[in-house]
Amino acid sequence: MAGNSFGHIFRLTSFGESHGVAIGGIIDGCPAGLEINQTFIQAELSRRKPGQSNISSPRKEDDAVEFVSGIFEGKTLGTPIAFMIKNADQKSGDYSKLKDVYRPSHADFVYEKKYGIRDHRGGGRSSARETIARVVAGAIAKLYLMQYGVQINAFVKQIGTVKLIGEHTAFDIKMAESNIVRCPDKDIAQQMIAHIEKLRDEGDTCGGIIQCVIENTPIGLGEPVFDKLHAELGKAMLSINAVKGFEIGNGFDSVIYKGSQLNDEFEQKDGKVTTRTNHSGGIQGGISNGMPIYFNVAFKPVASIKKPQTTINNAGEKTEIQIEGRHDPCVVPRAVPIVESMAAMVIMDHFLLQKVNSK
Amino acid sequence: MAGNSFGHIFRLTSFGESHGVAIGGIIDGCPAGLEINQTFIQAELSRRKPGQSNISSPRKEDDAVEFVSGIFEGKTLGTPIAFMIKNADQKSGDYSKLKDVYRPSHADFVYEKKYGIRDHRGGGRSSARETIARVVAGAIAKLYLMQYGVQINAFVKQIGTVKLIGEHTAFDIKMAESNIVRCPDKDIAQQMIAHIEKLRDEGDTCGGIIQCVIENTPIGLGEPVFDKLHAELGKAMLSINAVKGFEIGNGFDSVIYKGSQLNDEFEQKDGKVTTRTNHSGGIQGGISNGMPIYFNVAFKPVASIKKPQTTINNAGEKTEIQIEGRHDPCVVPRAVPIVESMAAMVIMDHFLLQKVNSK
Amino acid sequence: MAGNSFGHIFRLTSFGESHGVAIGGIIDGCPAGLEINQTFIQAELSRRKPGQSNISSPRKEDDAVEFVSGIFEGKTLGTPIAFMIKNADQKSGDYSKLKDVYRPSHADFVYEKKYGIRDHRGGGRSSARETIARVVAGAIAKLYLMQYGVQINAFVKQIGTVKLIGEHTAFDIKMAESNIVRCPDKDIAQQMIAHIEKLRDEGDTCGGIIQCVIENTPIGLGEPVFDKLHAELGKAMLSINAVKGFEIGNGFDSVIYKGSQLNDEFEQKDGKVTTRTNHSGGIQGGISNGMPIYFNVAFKPVASIKKPQTTINNAGEKTEIQIEGRHDPCVVPRAVPIVESMAAMVIMDHFLLQKVNSK
Amino acid sequence: MAGNSFGHIFRLTSFGESHGVAIGGIIDGCPAGLEINQTFIQAELSRRKPGQSNISSPRKEDDAVEFVSGIFEGKTLGTPIAFMIKNADQKSGDYSKLKDVYRPSHADFVYEKKYGIRDHRGGGRSSARETIARVVAGAIAKLYLMQYGVQINAFVKQIGTVKLIGEHTAFDIKMAESNIVRCPDKDIAQQMIAHIEKLRDEGDTCGGIIQCVIENTPIGLGEPVFDKLHAELGKAMLSINAVKGFEIGNGFDSVIYKGSQLNDEFEQKDGKVTTRTNHSGGIQGGISNGMPIYFNVAFKPVASIKKPQTTINNAGEKTEIQIEGRHDPCVVPRAVPIVESMAAMVIMDHFLLQKVNSK
Repeated sequence: MAGNSFGHIFRLTSFGESHGVAIGGIIDGCPAGLEINQTFIQAELSRRKPGQSNISSPRKEDDAVEFVSGIFEGKTLGTPIAFMIKNADQKSGDYSKLKDVYRPSHADFVYEKKYGIRDHRGGGRSSARETIARVVAGAIAKLYLMQYGVQINAFVKQIGTVKLIGEHTAFDIKMAESNIVRCPDKDIAQQMIAHIEKLRDEGDTCGGIIQCVIENTPIGLGEPVFDKLHAELGKAMLSINAVKGFEIGNGFDSVIYKGSQLNDEFEQKDGKVTTRTNHSGGIQGGISNGMPIYFNVAFKPVASIKKPQTTINNAGEKTEIQIEGRHDPCVVPRAVPIVESMAAMVIMDHFLLQKVNSK
Repeated sequence: MAGNSFGHIFRLTSFGESHGVAIGGIIDGCPAGLEINQTFIQAELSRRKPGQSNISSPRKEDDAVEFVSGIFEGKTLGTPIAFMIKNADQKSGDYSKLKDVYRPSHADFVYEKKYGIRDHRGGGRSSARETIARVVAGAIAKLYLMQYGVQINAFVKQIGTVKLIGEHTAFDIKMAESNIVRCPDKDIAQQMIAHIEKLRDEGDTCGGIIQCVIENTPIGLGEPVFDKLHAELGKAMLSINAVKGFEIGNGFDSVIYKGSQLNDEFEQKDGKVTTRTNHSGGIQGGISNGMPIYFNVAFKPVASIKKPQTTINNAGEKTEIQIEGRHDPCVVPRAVPIVESMAAMVIMDHFLLQKVNSK
Repeated sequence: MAGNSFGHIFRLTSFGESHGVAIGGIIDGCPAGLEINQTFIQAELSRRKPGQSNISSPRKEDDAVEFVSGIFEGKTLGTPIAFMIKNADQKSGDYSKLKDVYRPSHADFVYEKKYGIRDHRGGGRSSARETIARVVAGAIAKLYLMQYGVQINAFVKQIGTVKLIGEHTAFDIKMAESNIVRCPDKDIAQQMIAHIEKLRDEGDTCGGIIQCVIENTPIGLGEPVFDKLHAELGKAMLSINAVKGFEIGNGFDSVIYKGSQLNDEFEQKDGKVTTRTNHSGGIQGGISNGMPIYFNVAFKPVASIKKPQTTINNAGEKTEIQIEGRHDPCVVPRAVPIVESMAAMVIMDHFLLQKVNSK
Repeated sequence: MAGNSFGHIFRLTSFGESHGVAIGGIIDGCPAGLEINQTFIQAELSRRKPGQSNISSPRKEDDAVEFVSGIFEGKTLGTPIAFMIKNADQKSGDYSKLKDVYRPSHADFVYEKKYGIRDHRGGGRSSARETIARVVAGAIAKLYLMQYGVQINAFVKQIGTVKLIGEHTAFDIKMAESNIVRCPDKDIAQQMIAHIEKLRDEGDTCGGIIQCVIENTPIGLGEPVFDKLHAELGKAMLSINAVKGFEIGNGFDSVIYKGSQLNDEFEQKDGKVTTRTNHSGGIQGGISNGMPIYFNVAFKPVASIKKPQTTINNAGEKTEIQIEGRHDPCVVPRAVPIVESMAAMVIMDHFLLQKVNSK
């Protein structure tokens, strides 16, 4: 109820403040007997971690995950999987001047009003450092789903005004991992990097759009009425820090088309039902139809800018601040594994739920 | 778990198929002692019901709600509120030819694969007729929230390519109810209506965008990390039939701005903390900050078009269909009260949750 | 959260006040394709209904169930199953004198304090009439479990001081249905009936113990740590009106034995693992081991006695009352199908949950 | 859903295997601003820990709790409270011979069948060592409830056949902590200790009954219909290892009384409503009435006896075993703080839930 758990069957409960002892979580409901490939999990964490390139935060963290329970001789036991990632590079001192100040577009003000108390160091619980727990759970969900051939890949589609045009089928998504901005098109990637570097040098920040594609999902995932698969994916994405929008399939664009242009006609090929087009984005009536699921996630610019800003403190007094600390000029590239992780958790959860309907 | 319940504390469980006996639900968790203004609830249902204008479905339904429990001498008891709306105009015959056919971009195919059985009449459970239950629960949530001055108003911002430009603060939202398309600008409304009528006459359909504005929300609603207020609103909206996208505040647009342009600086006026701008859309770190909450919801065109379409039947054979029945050329105007209802349910639910944090 | 729902996957949400329009519920999570034998369900309701014998309440109710959704051509659709039983014989007049009075050992006082409002007619929501919804859901669970050979039978083991001695394996439980008190031993049954009649004539009431036996449960049902199968059964039983105690297997008696006397040693017979004794009651570590599950449920005497009692009214004034109305001198025989129903719901729920663990 | 979480609002998710790295949990939903008295929490853990007397297991554990998140400058933040207790004295070697054997009345067999894999060392997840997490969460719940004057005290009422006769009001419950068996009567305590020592020396074990008394509970806690306060307490207790029975108020005894003997008549004294007797045990209709809540919990003898036993191994072969290891001859005295902890969690959870109903 307090919002720190995600999932119905495969369920992550996460914990941790940015400058506390550790970030971690408990995964309950993971089926027994799953082989836990720790190298894979650590590699996923490395895709998310700060300091991985010159366009990300220089905060230094190993982000090494320790599993504390639920795994025995390399396999899951069916019992809760608890894990922890220690917070190494806690420069809390950077934050002491911000103790009483409400940083613009940060959660400082609302946390203080909601709880009457807050950990001001690095945003406390509201820090995106919390997403580490999501990547661990997401990596485990990926390991589970791989057994069934489900593929989940995200990439950066837009940074500021630099945009990759075209449908996901037009490029090789896997190429996204070949550059630091995680865009599958090398040239656009260069432009994106240049854009981020320019803003970084200005002490400013920018946002972007991530597209995620899920292939080989079984037909029938998603629960009507309120737990439609894209509603669950939408909530998952909107719960990630800095996300402001979500659209499935044609999304906002579908508004300008006619029904006759947008309907996906069914056809059967080699005994398999497909649709001629896939404007629906692989989900109809909230349930997966076996076509690729794809959706876009919009990230606003990072709120921590180095430029001076006007705000108030907790006495209501006007004050000018300049945020120091080691912030990302753009979090979007590092958010790619987070988006994939949340997608993996949703798909695995509904995969397990659908077992209940099976004979 | 099967997706027919919504809300943590204030919780609707809905039931009913389009051509079954009735649509209805149970609302659990409504505080005791709330006066139930049935005239208001019925008026909300009338805003949603078919046949209200020449741009909506001609299906004839009184949509009269009957309360079966939970209300005593005009007030809620704190016990479950059960209600029902009978399905009067069930022309199931219209659907008999579609018994074995998968209508394009409908849920026929996925329901059959998921459950191994389906009620083909009017889409069964996947019909938007289910949203009646949401409007009843939403109307009760509105009655509750009114006591605290919370105002929830939605309007049509775009139909096909006809767009209302400008921020919500630029027009009088309440004027939306003065025309059948529910757009606050009279002239744009006329263009929208003309657009819908043209498509209707072609046997085609269109989508649109609804904007919803919530004013006077208390500070502190929303639960980090996974149940951020906008994530909950997003899921609520994405669970509505035909919705393909959701964005809060500046949404997808925030991508093209710099952090320095988008940050909302705090200021204090008359002892009240506000932000100079409201690009965040009234929510920061997932928690309401007291500023107006506003968001956009994208609806795709109705999938039931009168034009001939190619599809397959459940034997995998190619077939051509032409959908008869009484369908809306555009559901967006009728969806305005549905969007408001889902918003009201989310806000009330988090209002009650926040009581737990209070002293 | 407000306590009107039961079950994780197979989930009943019930509604209704004793003297309101109807009692009913929504069952969500019932797998699709289950044949609904309405004759069986109605027969289960008849086992519970008042007026079935001269030792039960003379309230006249048909208790005919109407299904409103979720069933199509005799089978479940996988969508919510809504149902209703109208309240026919509402003699609310009987209660008008009790409007402001707190009946001893009834819920009048606590409901008024909890909610600030109450439906005083027949106890409102606190009436055992609510258990009708449990019997409908339980009957559906039985239909589901029958497919897998699971058998659930309860019987009356004690009424007041009249006791059936011996283990459940010593008698033919099915014989319980051959007499109005539902005790499998004809002679003890006669003594029990005589005991109830005597108290009825005195205007007094009595309680008793029901034993329930579940046979042929698959191995592996129940979830450690908090949702142990017997903890779930215990909660289910303790939620029935007038229940004051629950014990599984040897229960309270196990206290007086040594570990060496009570341990159930495993053995293998014909390739099947069993235990030589079954003091555990078919559950070990919270998980079914394939042996018969058996447990006892203690019911206190009905609180509505015809003898004069002293109490207070809502002004705090002392007053004497004499409860009229059509009350049972002993509810235990009518509670047999309720106990079975709750057991069936728990077993089915965990049966479905266990599918998630399956390959 | 996998059974490792407890509570609606104040919610513990626990983790850990007996011989894994650590036992711990996450508490979500604890209100912000609560002072965390670590000395008190550690003292509660010491009441539970092994090795505290010659009638408990000699396993040596400091059971020192480390808090990892959710606490800042000594107060709760409103964010998840994660904690861990390292497993120090892991003599896993003791268990290697039991790797393939199903110990009688243990969970070895059912875990293997349920999950297809198990951690055989010390029972893995099924070990009562898991209850450490409950004591930490329970201690925090006690700290919260103390602010409102709620008192929760349990004591040993029976060990084997040695029984403390009389109602809880007849003795000074606090005296229970003055002896190692935790019985408030010094003489009976001596008899209990002698009984345990005798069985210990025989290599045998015994069970017992704990009574728990909750005083000063506010009126109105508990949710009808399925989440009655005693049903929640019952489930909480039945989820503790080795518990076989639960009864509230007069419990099983109420069966032999008449309604006229058992009803609790209301009276008003000094403006406060009380009942003349308290056979109901402080709960009516599932809701607290302000009188002391009391209930009994029955524990079976510990299954780990030193005497030789016959059983089978996972190949189905008959085998004789003798359980070594450091087991308690009787866990009942150590279970006293566990019972109190579960009670505290239930009461706090419903205390918070009831805030939702408040104005």
